[in-house]
Amino acid sequence: MLSRYLPILEWGRAYNRSVLTNDLVAAVIVTIMLIPQSLAYALLAGLPPVVGLYASILPLVLYAIFGTSRTLAVGPVAVISLMTASAAGAVAAQGTAQYLEAAITLAMLSGVMLAVLGFLRAGFLANLLSHPVISGFITASGILIATSQLKHILGIAAGGENWPEMLGSLARSIAETNPWTLAIGIPATLFLFWVRKGGKPALVALGLGPRAAEMTAKAGPVAAVALTILAVIAFDLGERGVNLVGAIPQGLPPFALPSTDLSLIEKLWVPALLISIIGFVESVSVAQTLAAKRRQRISPDQELVGLGAANIASAFSGGYPVTGGFARSAVNFDAGAETPAAGAFTAVGIALATLFLTPLLYSLPIATLAATIIVAVLSLVDLKTPGQLWRYSKADFAAHVATITITLLAGVELGVIAGVAVGLLLYLYRASRPHAAIVGRVPETEHFRNVERHKVLTVPHVLSIRIDESLTYLNARWLEEYVLESVAERPQLRHVILMCSAVNEIDASGLESLEAINHRLGDGGIGMHLSEVKGPVMDRLKRTHFLEELNGKVFLSQERAFRELSRDNGEPEPPHDHYHARGMI
Amino acid sequence: MLSRYLPILEWGRAYNRSVLTNDLVAAVIVTIMLIPQSLAYALLAGLPPVVGLYASILPLVLYAIFGTSRTLAVGPVAVISLMTASAAGAVAAQGTAQYLEAAITLAMLSGVMLAVLGFLRAGFLANLLSHPVISGFITASGILIATSQLKHILGIAAGGENWPEMLGSLARSIAETNPWTLAIGIPATLFLFWVRKGGKPALVALGLGPRAAEMTAKAGPVAAVALTILAVIAFDLGERGVNLVGAIPQGLPPFALPSTDLSLIEKLWVPALLISIIGFVESVSVAQTLAAKRRQRISPDQELVGLGAANIASAFSGGYPVTGGFARSAVNFDAGAETPAAGAFTAVGIALATLFLTPLLYSLPIATLAATIIVAVLSLVDLKTPGQLWRYSKADFAAHVATITITLLAGVELGVIAGVAVGLLLYLYRASRPHAAIVGRVPETEHFRNVERHKVLTVPHVLSIRIDESLTYLNARWLEEYVLESVAERPQLRHVILMCSAVNEIDASGLESLEAINHRLGDGGIGMHLSEVKGPVMDRLKRTHFLEELNGKVFLSQERAFRELSRDNGEPEPPHDHYHARGMI
Repeated sequence: MLSRYLPILEWGRAYNRSVLTNDLVAAVIVTIMLIPQSLAYALLAGLPPVVGLYASILPLVLYAIFGTSRTLAVGPVAVISLMTASAAGAVAAQGTAQYLEAAITLAMLSGVMLAVLGFLRAGFLANLLSHPVISGFITASGILIATSQLKHILGIAAGGENWPEMLGSLARSIAETNPWTLAIGIPATLFLFWVRKGGKPALVALGLGPRAAEMTAKAGPVAAVALTILAVIAFDLGERGVNLVGAIPQGLPPFALPSTDLSLIEKLWVPALLISIIGFVESVSVAQTLAAKRRQRISPDQELVGLGAANIASAFSGGYPVTGGFARSAVNFDAGAETPAAGAFTAVGIALATLFLTPLLYSLPIATLAATIIVAVLSLVDLKTPGQLWRYSKADFAAHVATITITLLAGVELGVIAGVAVGLLLYLYRASRPHAAIVGRVPETEHFRNVERHKVLTVPHVLSIRIDESLTYLNARWLEEYVLESVAERPQLRHVILMCSAVNEIDASGLESLEAINHRLGDGGIGMHLSEVKGPVMDRLKRTHFLEELNGKVFLSQERAFRELSRDNGEPEPPHDHYHARGMI
Repeated sequence: MLSRYLPILEWGRAYNRSVLTNDLVAAVIVTIMLIPQSLAYALLAGLPPVVGLYASILPLVLYAIFGTSRTLAVGPVAVISLMTASAAGAVAAQGTAQYLEAAITLAMLSGVMLAVLGFLRAGFLANLLSHPVISGFITASGILIATSQLKHILGIAAGGENWPEMLGSLARSIAETNPWTLAIGIPATLFLFWVRKGGKPALVALGLGPRAAEMTAKAGPVAAVALTILAVIAFDLGERGVNLVGAIPQGLPPFALPSTDLSLIEKLWVPALLISIIGFVESVSVAQTLAAKRRQRISPDQELVGLGAANIASAFSGGYPVTGGFARSAVNFDAGAETPAAGAFTAVGIALATLFLTPLLYSLPIATLAATIIVAVLSLVDLKTPGQLWRYSKADFAAHVATITITLLAGVELGVIAGVAVGLLLYLYRASRPHAAIVGRVPETEHFRNVERHKVLTVPHVLSIRIDESLTYLNARWLEEYVLESVAERPQLRHVILMCSAVNEIDASGLESLEAINHRLGDGGIGMHLSEVKGPVMDRLKRTHFLEELNGKVFLSQERAFRELSRDNGEPEPPHDHYHARGMI
């Protein structure tokens, strides 16, 4: 029981020396990769670079205790950084103490929300984000993020809350481009693009083993960082207008008290909720993918607790919202991490870097960090999905395109909300028009099939309707209309059989509709019968007056209902036959 | 085609003298009943009484042209009047020109929204209100309305936006009760309560025919109006502090231009949307009930257009939001109305009353109108439903009680929103955990049933899972978890068959989950097979790469899939048998 809430108790027991070695190796590799990434994502969030490092220490330790994935690596990620910039930017200007306070408060709120949802076992809420909405959101975010970083490559000042604004702002300032910044930014971007695909084969050609080559290629950003720092120092580029990272405070993260300002919380709770849900969905997808590769399982509800604890820890140590990232988790996995302890060791690595390495980063150009972001996020932009969705499902296509369009034009928050709303409306629309079929008996069998698709036997005074969905309030009105319209078209009708083989549930609204149908059919002298009602559904119907008021019968099988009711041809049965016929049924 | 949008073209063609006579008789009866009701509901909405009459003229004519119900009577109704008071009260004080402007703007916005939803054929949105939410809302509204009218019976000033506030305000002022007002209010209330149940039998005992007695009893409020006017005049009660209706402007409704003030529209659009949806649901329920009694049909989408036109007309003639009311429609139906022309004739009757009868109402006590409201709405309070819902469905009970509680404590708007939200969350929760069963073959048949409920045949290396729902984004994640967990528990497994007989649809998220399951099972050397895939679902799957990538087969029947895969016992087949066995399958 306790190990359900503290997964560390389970994997901790089997911990041994060989696992320790593997975890340590993975931690070293992930640490090297994380340093430039953390600085870059803090920049994207509009925060001082060191905040990215702070968000990569304590959260990893807390996730290691509460998380259920063996290989997930938490920390700052691109989309959440963009959402943080958008939410914090709405309450304060970048660079102010209020802006940092807002970012820390977002982490706190998001952490509390995730933990509460976890204790409520409400992971199902993440289902509201369909795959087309998520992929649309990620594509649009990738475009927004890449565009927002162009100003750092060009060395100009530009802004904008949405895509058209960003492009306009870039266009107005492009004449002020700093050629030295461009001379750093463009080669860095090209190098990073190349190293993603071409790095590993080149290293293999140089004689490295395939696995070592792959790991070394992942450290491409570190090479870009080192080379551009050297270039800055060699050519004194700081004096020529190239923006540098500058002095980073040395030392462990400070203990921070998140804001308890209610007016700030009131402004930030909606973005914090969206950050929580997007972060959770991204993290769970990554964790599930990796777990399945090793035939492990994760628990989505406990993941909420793990991510909640990580975000609360981030807030208390001066960080900003974090979640499980795809790139870093994949590196951790490939590097051979076996338990969440690898994450804790990575935290130690980052902490050491924060203590001792930050002076080396003084001359790092902002353009290099922007280049790492651009290369990372452009791989998220997926241009094949819209076409695939169009061919497969117009409704999913609509939700996908609505999410992309609204995210680009109105920002990340409205984009997510619009995607969820469009998906939900389309779902409810379809749910309110469920599938039902008029069925008849397949000759010489006891099977009943759709009259429109099969050659089947029917009789004019009996109508058999197979309902292919549970009866809920969303489709209750539809059921009434469908049955009554079908009846209105058939003047000879004397019996209606509702075949309930696919009805898993009848809620109170569905029951009221059945009562209304029963009542109206009764008024018209038509019997209403049910067949093949499932056990649990029947148990609940027995607790109501419906079965007493039903002006027909409940039959165990459709075949039996059809056989018995077909015989009732409306003529009075010959008296001498009466009891005999009854007896036979 | 045209008559779909203008139903008047259809029933107008068959119009003749006998129908005319019936419609005229019904119109006279409804007119007499509507006069006090219209005044009372305007009072409830916090508007001058004459506005209730204005809202009962032009809207009826427009509904007669565009509506599809033969017997629905539109006009002011209790719940919508309460919602109007709540929405208009939030932007202006009662009695001011701004308050009236807000009410007129609500009618306009609501009319436009209804008409637009009608043209979009979006009547399905009304499904979001489940029966338990609607009945909870109506019960709570009835309690709120009755409480809000007590001050008029007592002759005191009181206010309050929600139930506790109302009760507190009444308690503080109760010492100022005006005894003369009470002497009018209490007998009027008792008389109206008695006349509802006891009026008809008493009149029959006096020698009236049953139908005439029923109609006369419905005019009980008119008798209460006449008697209390006489009492006011006889005892000069106006001088003794009894509040009277006073001077009502004589004449036809003025032509009013609804406000185009954008800041007002911004404040009112949410309440207007709620008024539209609640009004539509109430109206459609009434119209469907009455239509079914005569085996007629209504079109919910066209009803949106009819109600939209009625509300726009109300706005342009100085009225406030209207909808189809239960009480007046039942009277219209019972009085023998045959076509919507009866509504148009009623409009003429109310117009004549507005022109000539209003001076007679000068001495009408407000307490009488309050009594008619109290008696009308208390019949809406339904105290049996909570118990029934508790026994039948805990989820429906929760939505019902949440709606009642939040409506009483936080007002009508939040009450409706909370009811819809709770209903939707519970629905989505259940939709995200659909029903599936592990099935086996019933001995000596080709049927496959749940292993937990039936004695069935299974083999350890084949797992058959019957999915009882369509695969959508809401349950896609669940499906992955369910299948992979079931597989993880069975180390001997070599084949998984997903039996899709109840899968009516697979959306893009469901497809991605199937792809993920296929991929993960493939990694583990397990074949994934589908059986009994429906035609339309298969057609869409063929447009993707899924079937090529599937590491198993698609079988027409579950029986065939099970037979073929059970034979694969993992041992290499004897070479001499190989082709033979294939040939047999």
